[in-house]
Amino acid sequence: MKTEIVKGSVCIVNAIKASGFFAGLKKDGYDVGLIYSDKTTVSSAVFTQNVIKAAPLVYDINLMSQTSDIRAVVVNSGNANACNRNGEKAVEEIVKTFADKLNLKNNQVFVASTGVIGEDLDYKRIINVSDELVQGLSKSGCSKFAKSIMTTDTFEKTYALKCNFYGTEFHIGGVAKGAGMIHPNMATMLSFITTDINISQAMLSKALKEAVYKSFNRISVDGDTSTNDTVFIMSTCQASNEKIENENEIYRFFTDQLIDVCTYLAKLIVKDGEGATKLAEVVVVGASSSEDAELIARSVSNSLLVKTAVFGKDPNWGRIVGSIGYSKANISLGRLKVYIGDELVFSCGKRTNYNRDYLKKYMDNEEIKILIDLGLGIHTYNMWFSDISYDYVKINAEYHT
Amino acid sequence: MKTEIVKGSVCIVNAIKASGFFAGLKKDGYDVGLIYSDKTTVSSAVFTQNVIKAAPLVYDINLMSQTSDIRAVVVNSGNANACNRNGEKAVEEIVKTFADKLNLKNNQVFVASTGVIGEDLDYKRIINVSDELVQGLSKSGCSKFAKSIMTTDTFEKTYALKCNFYGTEFHIGGVAKGAGMIHPNMATMLSFITTDINISQAMLSKALKEAVYKSFNRISVDGDTSTNDTVFIMSTCQASNEKIENENEIYRFFTDQLIDVCTYLAKLIVKDGEGATKLAEVVVVGASSSEDAELIARSVSNSLLVKTAVFGKDPNWGRIVGSIGYSKANISLGRLKVYIGDELVFSCGKRTNYNRDYLKKYMDNEEIKILIDLGLGIHTYNMWFSDISYDYVKINAEYHT
Repeated sequence: MKTEIVKGSVCIVNAIKASGFFAGLKKDGYDVGLIYSDKTTVSSAVFTQNVIKAAPLVYDINLMSQTSDIRAVVVNSGNANACNRNGEKAVEEIVKTFADKLNLKNNQVFVASTGVIGEDLDYKRIINVSDELVQGLSKSGCSKFAKSIMTTDTFEKTYALKCNFYGTEFHIGGVAKGAGMIHPNMATMLSFITTDINISQAMLSKALKEAVYKSFNRISVDGDTSTNDTVFIMSTCQASNEKIENENEIYRFFTDQLIDVCTYLAKLIVKDGEGATKLAEVVVVGASSSEDAELIARSVSNSLLVKTAVFGKDPNWGRIVGSIGYSKANISLGRLKVYIGDELVFSCGKRTNYNRDYLKKYMDNEEIKILIDLGLGIHTYNMWFSDISYDYVKINAEYHT
Repeated sequence: MKTEIVKGSVCIVNAIKASGFFAGLKKDGYDVGLIYSDKTTVSSAVFTQNVIKAAPLVYDINLMSQTSDIRAVVVNSGNANACNRNGEKAVEEIVKTFADKLNLKNNQVFVASTGVIGEDLDYKRIINVSDELVQGLSKSGCSKFAKSIMTTDTFEKTYALKCNFYGTEFHIGGVAKGAGMIHPNMATMLSFITTDINISQAMLSKALKEAVYKSFNRISVDGDTSTNDTVFIMSTCQASNEKIENENEIYRFFTDQLIDVCTYLAKLIVKDGEGATKLAEVVVVGASSSEDAELIARSVSNSLLVKTAVFGKDPNWGRIVGSIGYSKANISLGRLKVYIGDELVFSCGKRTNYNRDYLKKYMDNEEIKILIDLGLGIHTYNMWFSDISYDYVKINAEYHT
């Protein structure tokens, strides 16, 4: 078994092409993207937990409950197509147009949007460039696609793996956007992943759910959850492995590689969080339940006081301990241990005689790790989070609807 | 029945005096305060929900479970006396010293601290100024007391009422500190309230719990909960009313006035939140349960995106709707209505044709109101919150432990 990181993203998979074009939804740059598969696919997706969902999500959720063979994905930035007056109509027209031009059925087209909430989507602009998008489909188009889904993202987020399972070669490629919008409203997270592993839809869904649970669901930029978050995966099933129908060895190997792809992309989203200067990770171990481990990880990583301390390069264990205390998780103060980097800073309900010089130097790092050992059980959870800087406030306060 | 706002705070009550002095725990200004009652009292207190509690809270919680006649309150700023190595010893020595000098029993002295977490408390500095504090006790000392509990607070927070219930006169006076520390660690909230209403401890506790639930528990500066939060009330019981032993008419009247005092002080804390430029209120009505109303009010008022939008004077209803959506409360999108000021901005799952000029002007106000009508039931909840500005980040990032 071998895995190699390779250049590229979704087009790493043989039958898949992509494109991106400017439709006039953003001020400039690419703002509509298309992914297309020559071959039939097995596809799956997971969506935001926000009960208020954008029109494309309402459409996609229904779509994915009925079909699996998605052949095209159309994504626009610059408008979230959420809470507006023409969302359904816009989705309908976009789906129809691309299905026609690509010779697909309507139910083979998946849609996604990111951008400002509540503005009607000028979908005719997307339809007007549909020919360019279809004609532009190519292997090298994946970079244009990556750009077309960006909003306040400052760099493209892509990753690809070439994997070998006892001689069977397969690929996983992904692209993502995160953490901001041209008109910042919600930190929408979108990710599109392709693969050629031969797998049933049920098992692909299961693998995607586990991967998202261990990656995208464990990141925090500002604690808000978007109306548009979507992670989509499609497989051409062209790899030579026997179709995965259960949790066998190759399923485990594939899922671990998928977790790797999703984690890499999720961490890129945190690194590119609005105004972020650092990537921090909090790891909770020794919890008496996984719920408790998660409560603490979320409490610490969403704490504004912790986030601003990380920005200020301050090894402020008091804020970490405080946010553990109000997490509502079961803790025993006498057993609690907190480490910043390799340094134990809090133990038995009291601060330790920690090495201030080490901590001062450690907090200069671009990546910071906080380890919390509850000493109560075997359950663990981790979260990646960004700091909160002046620029976060600037980006989010200086926009006027 | 009549209520009059009067100048002053805790010393509005006849037998009560206060003082403040500089012990050297802060760089300058007053940092230790004392409240003292000549008369026996009936007292009660509520404490932080954070499971990690500072040493004075551990002491006070035990104290208040055993006694009611608190005669003196000693408070220091500059050090939270939390998660350090000498917390218990410090409390013990402070209590003993002030009990001796005031001719009280140890169990008549209540203590509180606010400041940096995790540093040993140099309690000898407090003991060294105990004579000055005792000798300084006076009616006019309440202003020094108010200053002595301030950390990054930028103004004194006091309020007092003279109330008349069908000829029976009584008083309620309060002082509070909020929202920050000389070494910002946790936004500790402290409040001390005095009254002369004649009341049993059980009913005073009940009134305080209701008042805190409707005031101090409904404010959000940054969503963090301190290890030191304390609200304390003492009554000399010198008013001429028959002792309140149940929820009669004067109990209701007193409790309403107490809610008024606590709400006024709580709102001052939000107004003086670290870096705050505005006081916002979110009112949730029409919820199918009070839990749902609270979930939504907390979700909106803790949303970083909403807080930065308020700072940016942006009537960003999309962020409000988004934070309602991820609150985990039961909502029906078709029935949801959101108002900013008097303007309906979101209805039936879509934005309205709102008056942009009105909203633009409205967001310039120092006090902003957001009304959310779920259209599902009769339950309500409200929260007051501050915006998040550049200065919030500055205050919380530029301190180094």
